[in-house]
This record gives sequence, C-alpha cells and structure tokens, in this order.
Amino acid sequence: MIVDGRALAEVLKAEVRVEVEKLSSLTLAVIVNVSDAVTDSYVKIKKRVAGELGVTVVDCASVEEALVADGIILQLPLPPGMDVEREKNKIPIEKDVDVLSDAAFAAFSNGNHPAIPPVPAAMKYILEKNNTTIYGGKVAIVGYGRLVGKPAAVLFKQLGAEVRVADKGDDVGAITRDADIVILGTGIAGVLKPDMVKDGVAILDAGASVDRRLPAGRQGKVVGDADPACADKASLFTPVPGGVGPVAIAEIFANLVALERHFRP
Amino acid sequence: MIVDGRALAEVLKAEVRVEVEKLSSLTLAVIVNVSDAVTDSYVKIKKRVAGELGVTVVDCASVEEALVADGIILQLPLPPGMDVEREKNKIPIEKDVDVLSDAAFAAFSNGNHPAIPPVPAAMKYILEKNNTTIYGGKVAIVGYGRLVGKPAAVLFKQLGAEVRVADKGDDVGAITRDADIVILGTGIAGVLKPDMVKDGVAILDAGASVDRRLPAGRQGKVVGDADPACADKASLFTPVPGGVGPVAIAEIFANLVALERHFRP
Repeated sequence: MIVDGRALAEVLKAEVRVEVEKLSSLTLAVIVNVSDAVTDSYVKIKKRVAGELGVTVVDCASVEEALVADGIILQLPLPPGMDVEREKNKIPIEKDVDVLSDAAFAAFSNGNHPAIPPVPAAMKYILEKNNTTIYGGKVAIVGYGRLVGKPAAVLFKQLGAEVRVADKGDDVGAITRDADIVILGTGIAGVLKPDMVKDGVAILDAGASVDRRLPAGRQGKVVGDADPACADKASLFTPVPGGVGPVAIAEIFANLVALERHFRP
Repeated sequence: MIVDGRALAEVLKAEVRVEVEKLSSLTLAVIVNVSDAVTDSYVKIKKRVAGELGVTVVDCASVEEALVADGIILQLPLPPGMDVEREKNKIPIEKDVDVLSDAAFAAFSNGNHPAIPPVPAAMKYILEKNNTTIYGGKVAIVGYGRLVGKPAAVLFKQLGAEVRVADKGDDVGAITRDADIVILGTGIAGVLKPDMVKDGVAILDAGASVDRRLPAGRQGKVVGDADPACADKASLFTPVPGGVGPVAIAEIFANLVALERHFRP
C-alpha cells in the first residue's frame, strides 16, 4: 500500500492543534541562513503549518536572537563559513524542536526526552497508524546521516527492533533483503531496488534528491531513495514527495508541544 | 477543562479521511422527511462533512430508494404520519451508520458489531483523547433516549464502567453526585447543577434544547443539559454547542468506513 503522508499529516496536525489550543500562545523561531529553491520550499511549508496550528513564527538571524521563542528551527544547511556543530549546540534543549543539539540528542538517546527527531518520529507514526509491528522486527537502515539514519537507529532500537545499518561502502542488499522494515535516508535516487527487499516489506523513504535523468521538461523533480517499483513488493511504501516528509513537518510541532509541556508545565 | 469538540472532530475526520481514501468511492444516502431550522442545520453539517471526507451524498425520499448507497442516514424526527420503528428497521444492518435499527442495535449490544452509535462513540473518543479512564469508573447517565442514554448505557457497560441511569422521575442528583463521568441526554436545559457533581467529574453533555429564557435578541440559542457553572468543578466538560456534537457527526463517517470494511471487505 502506498502511504498518503499528506493525509496522515492532517491527522497528526489536528492532534497537535488540540494540544496547541490548550497551551498559552506558542512561538517558533526560524533561522534561515541559505536561500535556494529547496530550502525556501521547506521553510515556506513549515511556516504554513505553523499558521494552520496557531503557532506564531518569528524570523531570526541567529540562535541568540531566537532565544525569545518557545521553539527554534535552525534550518540546515548552513552556509560554508558557519560551523553547524557550534551553531546547533547553542539551541537550548528545551527549545530544540528538531532534537538537533548534542545535548538534546543525548537525552533522546538515553530514552529520557519528550521530543523525538522528526523524521524517525514520522516513520514511527506511519507504522503505528498502519498497525505495523515494530517490536521484534528486523529494521534495515540505509544511510547514517544526522537527520534520518542516525536518529532512526536509536529510536527503532528503543522500540525493540533488531536494527542493522548500511552506510557508505556496505552491501546494501545484504542488509535489506531479509528486513521487515527498510528505512532510507541516503539521498541517492533508486538505491533500493525491488530485488533487494522481501515481499511484504515496509519501506519508509526519507531520501530526497533531484532527479536529473528525467526527460526535458521534467527535470528537477524530487525523488526518493527507493525505486518506485519496490512498491509492488511492499505492504507499506512511502512515496517521495508526499510520504514521510509532510508527517515529519507535523512532528516538529508535536515536539514543540511536548517540550512545552515537559519543561514549562 | 472545556473540551473543544470542533478541534477533536478535526482529528477524527482526518483519521476517517485516511480510511476513506483507501476504499473505493463511498456514497451516503440522506433521507430527510421534516424541514425545520434545527433539522436543516444538522443535515447541512452532515453533508458538509461528507464533502470534506470525499463521501458522495445522495438525497433520497425513502429507505427503499436509499438502498443503492453504502450508508444510510434516516434523519430524525419523522413527520407524525410515519412510523419510526417501521422505517428505521428497513435499514439494512450493513448500511446503518447511526446503528438505528433493532437488528443493528442488537448486534452492537451483543458486542458483535463494527459500528457504535455515534453519540456514545463520540463520548468514548473524547474521554480517550483526554486520557480519562472508563474501565472501573462510575458512570451516571441522565436520560434514557434512543440516541444518547440507551446506547451509552450499553457501551459504557461494555467498556467496564459501573453504569447507573437516571430516567424520568428519578432523583438525578442521587445518581450523579458520586459519578466519575456524567452523561447527559435529556434535552432539559440546566438539569445538571454544580451541587449535583463531585470535583473532578467528567461531564459529557449531549443534551440540546432551545433556551427561551434568554433576553430578547438572544432567544433561540441552543443550550445543553448542564448548567455551564458545572464546568468549574469538572476535570472535563463538553460545551453545547461545540462539544459532543461535532465529534458525533464525524463518528457517523467512522461507522460508514467500519461497516464497509466489515461487510464488504
């Protein structure tokens, strides 16, 4: 089944909206240092969702300036001169809606944090809403980046899955072939082919790259890591776009509410 | 806490929308025999929600004509000449989204039916979304009508609550005073007063009557069974309008989906 991430995001947003209403007015600071088509699009979507949920957005030039808000998004990537490690670690743990700082990630890793990194949180939400069991399942994670693979490995271990990671240089098929759940976050279009998964697999694709191999006029289309033909073998398949992405954006706001409740009750 | 039923209904509708999408196109027949301001308003809302959820509405003059649809709403009340008992029992159990017929109600009562009468289903949903425990709780039901009290008594017993019903002539306060959850469905404005409930009670008000005691210009306002002052003692309080009602309308569509899955998989 092809997951309609946009429709599921509407469920999660409606749930978050109920919680936002119960709190006093929430503000979210957005720090954008780079302007390109993809970044602009992400920022625009996040701001639109904030509006839908009744969260006030403040544009800020730096983390320091953003400290007035209840939550902080440091939009990645940062421009070449800026140190991601230093900047992200300026975000106070209680405002870190992306669970980006080392302190926030450590708290999350220790199982002792109300927020979950948005992309794996979205994957968990999608699996749960489709009654797919995580506990005891074999989870293959392809790619080990900051936003997808690394936090997904932590989360799915916490949820009782048997996790294997394929990073650069590994034989991906050897790891994905017997997996119940395949998580993708490489940004390499078509890295997962149908012969690399078993029938009935759940494929959660958080990869995104611009496909330039398309015929003229269709260039610049964003595609995922999975070859779309994988969907035929999958019990659950998240398309790109319209799969994990919209739910992950809603999870940012679920984190905003969860942090607010936990740290400022 | 005052429950925002409209916001909760958005959550349920988004959940139902995801399910509607997975099914082939659904149609809902609406049979309206009476036209007055209140009935027209209900019918209009149900049709609007159908549109939001991608369900096609067919206006029908009789149950016989409505049999072409996937679900049937027989809008009550019926005009004086028509026999409610006879008409409602013409609705096939698998299309009875209001669980109105004797056969559907019997199946529901036996714990053997995928649909739940919409008003108590909405109450269950509201309690669950607010983490209010039903199992083992004391539930007082005021009013024992077809749409609220009677099905609520069945449902909350099934959910493991200790249920007591106050019907006409009973001392309402004697039954509500030690209840953890009070369910109202009498249509008598202000029948529940603050001195009749304990602190921390959850009040679910499905009563609706037109308050004619208001100053000129505010006449005709729909009010619930609970004196609004009860909200101060309640851990959970559903206002009228905007409490149980919007969620109950969404539950009609949850039933449409549940019946479709169960009887036409």
